[in-house]
Amino acid sequence: MTDRFTPTKADHFSFGLWTVGWGGKDLFGDPTRRPLDPVDAVHHLAALGAWGVTFHDDDVVAFGSDDPSREATIKRFRSALDETGTAVPMITTNLFTHPVFKEGAFTANDRSVRRFALRKTLRNLDLAAELGAQTFVMWGGREGAESDAAKDVRVALDRYKEAVDLLCEYVRSKGYNLRFALEPKPNEPRGDIFLPTIGHALSFIYQLEHPEMVGLNPEVGHENMACLNMVHGVAQALWAGKLFHIDLNGQHGPRYDQDLRFASADVKSAFFLVDLLETAGYDGPRHFDFKPPRAEGTEGVWVSAAGCMRNYLVLREKARAFRADPEVQEAMAAAGWPSLATPTLGPGETLAELLADRSAYEDFDPAGAGLREVNIERLDQLALDHILGVR
Amino acid sequence: MTDRFTPTKADHFSFGLWTVGWGGKDLFGDPTRRPLDPVDAVHHLAALGAWGVTFHDDDVVAFGSDDPSREATIKRFRSALDETGTAVPMITTNLFTHPVFKEGAFTANDRSVRRFALRKTLRNLDLAAELGAQTFVMWGGREGAESDAAKDVRVALDRYKEAVDLLCEYVRSKGYNLRFALEPKPNEPRGDIFLPTIGHALSFIYQLEHPEMVGLNPEVGHENMACLNMVHGVAQALWAGKLFHIDLNGQHGPRYDQDLRFASADVKSAFFLVDLLETAGYDGPRHFDFKPPRAEGTEGVWVSAAGCMRNYLVLREKARAFRADPEVQEAMAAAGWPSLATPTLGPGETLAELLADRSAYEDFDPAGAGLREVNIERLDQLALDHILGVR
Amino acid sequence: MTDRFTPTKADHFSFGLWTVGWGGKDLFGDPTRRPLDPVDAVHHLAALGAWGVTFHDDDVVAFGSDDPSREATIKRFRSALDETGTAVPMITTNLFTHPVFKEGAFTANDRSVRRFALRKTLRNLDLAAELGAQTFVMWGGREGAESDAAKDVRVALDRYKEAVDLLCEYVRSKGYNLRFALEPKPNEPRGDIFLPTIGHALSFIYQLEHPEMVGLNPEVGHENMACLNMVHGVAQALWAGKLFHIDLNGQHGPRYDQDLRFASADVKSAFFLVDLLETAGYDGPRHFDFKPPRAEGTEGVWVSAAGCMRNYLVLREKARAFRADPEVQEAMAAAGWPSLATPTLGPGETLAELLADRSAYEDFDPAGAGLREVNIERLDQLALDHILGVR
Amino acid sequence: MTDRFTPTKADHFSFGLWTVGWGGKDLFGDPTRRPLDPVDAVHHLAALGAWGVTFHDDDVVAFGSDDPSREATIKRFRSALDETGTAVPMITTNLFTHPVFKEGAFTANDRSVRRFALRKTLRNLDLAAELGAQTFVMWGGREGAESDAAKDVRVALDRYKEAVDLLCEYVRSKGYNLRFALEPKPNEPRGDIFLPTIGHALSFIYQLEHPEMVGLNPEVGHENMACLNMVHGVAQALWAGKLFHIDLNGQHGPRYDQDLRFASADVKSAFFLVDLLETAGYDGPRHFDFKPPRAEGTEGVWVSAAGCMRNYLVLREKARAFRADPEVQEAMAAAGWPSLATPTLGPGETLAELLADRSAYEDFDPAGAGLREVNIERLDQLALDHILGVR
Repeated sequence: MTDRFTPTKADHFSFGLWTVGWGGKDLFGDPTRRPLDPVDAVHHLAALGAWGVTFHDDDVVAFGSDDPSREATIKRFRSALDETGTAVPMITTNLFTHPVFKEGAFTANDRSVRRFALRKTLRNLDLAAELGAQTFVMWGGREGAESDAAKDVRVALDRYKEAVDLLCEYVRSKGYNLRFALEPKPNEPRGDIFLPTIGHALSFIYQLEHPEMVGLNPEVGHENMACLNMVHGVAQALWAGKLFHIDLNGQHGPRYDQDLRFASADVKSAFFLVDLLETAGYDGPRHFDFKPPRAEGTEGVWVSAAGCMRNYLVLREKARAFRADPEVQEAMAAAGWPSLATPTLGPGETLAELLADRSAYEDFDPAGAGLREVNIERLDQLALDHILGVR
Repeated sequence: MTDRFTPTKADHFSFGLWTVGWGGKDLFGDPTRRPLDPVDAVHHLAALGAWGVTFHDDDVVAFGSDDPSREATIKRFRSALDETGTAVPMITTNLFTHPVFKEGAFTANDRSVRRFALRKTLRNLDLAAELGAQTFVMWGGREGAESDAAKDVRVALDRYKEAVDLLCEYVRSKGYNLRFALEPKPNEPRGDIFLPTIGHALSFIYQLEHPEMVGLNPEVGHENMACLNMVHGVAQALWAGKLFHIDLNGQHGPRYDQDLRFASADVKSAFFLVDLLETAGYDGPRHFDFKPPRAEGTEGVWVSAAGCMRNYLVLREKARAFRADPEVQEAMAAAGWPSLATPTLGPGETLAELLADRSAYEDFDPAGAGLREVNIERLDQLALDHILGVR
Repeated sequence: MTDRFTPTKADHFSFGLWTVGWGGKDLFGDPTRRPLDPVDAVHHLAALGAWGVTFHDDDVVAFGSDDPSREATIKRFRSALDETGTAVPMITTNLFTHPVFKEGAFTANDRSVRRFALRKTLRNLDLAAELGAQTFVMWGGREGAESDAAKDVRVALDRYKEAVDLLCEYVRSKGYNLRFALEPKPNEPRGDIFLPTIGHALSFIYQLEHPEMVGLNPEVGHENMACLNMVHGVAQALWAGKLFHIDLNGQHGPRYDQDLRFASADVKSAFFLVDLLETAGYDGPRHFDFKPPRAEGTEGVWVSAAGCMRNYLVLREKARAFRADPEVQEAMAAAGWPSLATPTLGPGETLAELLADRSAYEDFDPAGAGLREVNIERLDQLALDHILGVR
Repeated sequence: MTDRFTPTKADHFSFGLWTVGWGGKDLFGDPTRRPLDPVDAVHHLAALGAWGVTFHDDDVVAFGSDDPSREATIKRFRSALDETGTAVPMITTNLFTHPVFKEGAFTANDRSVRRFALRKTLRNLDLAAELGAQTFVMWGGREGAESDAAKDVRVALDRYKEAVDLLCEYVRSKGYNLRFALEPKPNEPRGDIFLPTIGHALSFIYQLEHPEMVGLNPEVGHENMACLNMVHGVAQALWAGKLFHIDLNGQHGPRYDQDLRFASADVKSAFFLVDLLETAGYDGPRHFDFKPPRAEGTEGVWVSAAGCMRNYLVLREKARAFRADPEVQEAMAAAGWPSLATPTLGPGETLAELLADRSAYEDFDPAGAGLREVNIERLDQLALDHILGVR
């Protein structure tokens, strides 16, 4: 492995403990790997060059633990963080594994379940603050339905909003330095999940009491499951100022949630995603939410984790070379990038002036413009040449 | 055909002229039907029971017509409307057929194309106002890209916003009683279209200068192309107060845009969509944006159009019977509909009180709650029995 | 519930023990229901009107059981079958749950795993014969890969063929009255599964030593996961004489494997599937391979199972009424069903005569034929009216 | 551009005339490019390094041309072939553009249409033989239906078989050196097309009178539209000895037929496809069936065409380097490639011996085997490193 692709803490790579810690249990199979101690995971990831780890409450402390055992576990875990200098930039709450959440958490038809879900989350907000996390991700994996008869979605959204508003209120009342990031997903494990895409989650935010506290945590695979372009989605989130966090992995279109190693599925889209994050000045974690394939043994887990980081660094180098390539710059100009950045109305131009501009309509030659070269295939091939390393 | 399923103007069914007027030209084939005179279309639709027609500028007046011939054409068209008492509740602009828009209209990299697109739309806003339309739909079918190298999506969204803001400003300056409805679509004819789903379009609105003037025109098939649940999407649009218009048709999941006869693809989802529209008090047009299959002859066109309306009325009757069925009401209660409608916090309950409520967490029995009956399969089967007419 | 939709053994409905027995464990969640004793499942299903049960070896006898405990378990299970008069028309082997099969069974790169998989299956063939099963289903759920680097697919197919040929040889050598039915699935739990569709599995059969012993067990949801039309696929299997068994359930297009209650997802396709099975004279089991949604409690399981059978009976009645309806028959004639059943060449007509027939080409009027009515929308709407119960 | 990626005739690259000749007409838009003279296309492609061209009858000679004008056109076209030394390895018949085929060609419900389709194809077989084509592709783009009520699929397959059998008979009677290659596609322009995937088409062949004369022409995009793995599909076709021809392009999963430039969509899959073709010794044409994006002007067409060939050559070089890399070879061994190539039964081993081998079952340790390393992630990352050019 070439040195320049070896990660350092400055690269801000983080991993969910549930990623390398996934034992391989799936709908059709039992675990193939022995349980991984979170403390070992922290040491291993740090050794590979990771900067941070993230987790659900239950990843570190077993569901239903009492306070003393919870504190002991957390203390031991903090030691590992301290020893390795590992950050905890993000924490989240597991509202999907336990049967109690089988019909939803914040939007469960059963009110007592909703109250329990709120309490479980509130408890975890304290831990997030204590560990210095700045982002609190909310993936509502069980908020949804298999049948359109299950509930009135408008009412479910009322309850969803009620929950997020309460959590925001709590963070404000405590003065925590925490922002929320909603993670959209179209389906699985529910037939249809609420807030299924970047767009749906983004629009939900504007109905909240404190929209400024809530942003997004988009995931490559989740958008691909809805046949959507991840680069476009992340660009729209950035445009709205709402890319608070990101989940990097890979997925082959609409099928079960694959959580493949970053960049191992759609290489070209991964290139443009890295290019976007780097050129947009995104300064949050590069967070990998993947699953080492169930077939792999323990060694394979770390090969897979290391691959995620390596691929990001390779693509980052390529994205920088692409942008710096004079021929690319010339091709971008020929394709009209600068023109798109120029407002459609001139400086100070009014609507009346546009209407009076005969060159814009009466004297415009649409047929001629319809024959123009757009030069995008050329630019796309240049990008592909950079990706393939043949320039 | 049973009488009670014969439509009347009170049902507010409208059709795009481009639907029954589609000649059958597709990517792989030449037209199979002779051109349909818009005046004939109006008469035919009115005879079938339709209440309104909608159109793109170019559906009625050929692209590039000069003012006198345009006025003559419109005058003749108005006569047909008047004779038949047909409304024009919605108008839209064709920014996708002509080669000039091949690389986009409001977001084309070429600035002169963007200016032309604005002028073409502004001209059409006057016509919309003149004909009494209340909704102006904007489907940006060419706003998108096949390659992620084509443009910076954030900059494209700047231009999209600039265009919509200008159109809103124009409508305000003219005092027109017009609202805009964005129509999302994930792809086709572009590789990826901007504002690909209900969610993406909805969130875009909150970045505009006049969000109150802009809502949505979701289409069944377009959401299905992204593997998304149309009923959930429309519910979220209603929840946000943004369902300004709706396109009813049918589609078999992610593939080319099929525009099948309403309710002929996913019968059960069509039932729940009608149920939602009727119970939510949606009072806009029931607009069919379908294509009679290319194989059909002229008679088949009208059979197909009539089927759209019939199916809506059949499902409306079924939805009402479903809601009125005492066993359904009992099953809804058992499934927890009333509980979901009850806020999670009690009246006046504070966060501190929730935190102090031991019954919500410390004394709550998650294992027991995990075993509870949720009764959704029962309710779903009752709905299916109503759909199938076996109750 | 109307009496005529109550199933009897004559309806030949069978259920996998793993269907009603699914405890709700999924990739993201723990079980929500207590384990179901297979003996209880048999009694419950018989009481609901089921005719048969099917199972994987491990559904009845725990993986790795020794012979005495295996025999005791089977004996107790047989008593339940005898008491209830329940048939065991099909048996299958679980080659996917245990970690040993994580990288495949018959096509695992590890030869010792392949040998173990063969032995496990051979052992189960004896049980199948002993219990009178006539069909042995093979779903190769772990035969596949996440990476195209994993193996040479051609070599994997050599091993797959070797395995099936050996199993056929064993059945022949023992004189068992057993046929094999391959069950295709495109993906999940593997990234891509070998023999992903009805077509791929069907074509594989013709490479075997004993193609006459091997047919298909198509599943509704599996074809839908590949965006394919189940009715078309089953028709092709019937056409090839290879529909040996069938798995009925429901699925909303390409996403995770949903295994919904039969007919609860795509109602119209379910109608045409039942119509096909009934008109084609398919006389095998109507086997439900579904999963009661994880959210449901124990009662919900049986509601869901009962719904599968009810829906089949409702659709069967509708299919018969559809075929018997004189207007449908007239519409079928108008749509050209009889014409399609007429060979394209006349009785005894030679190729030379076709070439000499000027009416077939030189004097044929393609433009006129291009304008003909095909009458399919009308027929489709009649079918929909029957489905909806409004005729 | 590096020299070693400049194509020569020895690379056997061929293009459909309809690819570079596509004017940009789509369902939503008029043509954006001027018609391309087939003679110009031949010269242009030859200059770029192409070896052959392919076409539908109507691409070269207008539908319905009389014999003299047809012959004159063909003569002029042959001159261009001769001047440039361009081969015509494949010809096909257009049975989808003209309205007469709107409801099918070989499977149209209307018998006179089926007879016309046969005659049109027979006429074209003579031309294929005359021009020295060795492969005759059959894409049944209109063979299918939007409604399951349209026809009995089993009867449609009878007609399909009748047609293919007749065409085979004709070729045999004439002594032409021609093989047929069926091109599967799941949908578009029909709702569902018959023989939708590689598997379905392959299995159909075994029902024909002369299976040895018929093989496949799989297309990257068509398999991707059904969420299927193209590499797996082509491997199965090769395994069956049925890869007669191949269509190379790109597609982003299930959506409208995109026909993108080869390797521009799924780079990694394109790498493994080239690797498969090269290692399997496939010696047929490398045929590009793509569409230069509608937005591109005339120059863009040739950039796009050149990119198809360049990408193949780049990936071929990478595939060779991958196979030659000692670390890759070692990783393949570690992943078990040689083990998979070893039959599961030993040389001469009988079933009885397998049953008696206690090491295969009784003494085998499945738990231990379940924990083994499979080393596929490592191999996959090595492949990715080769693709990205960082090894």
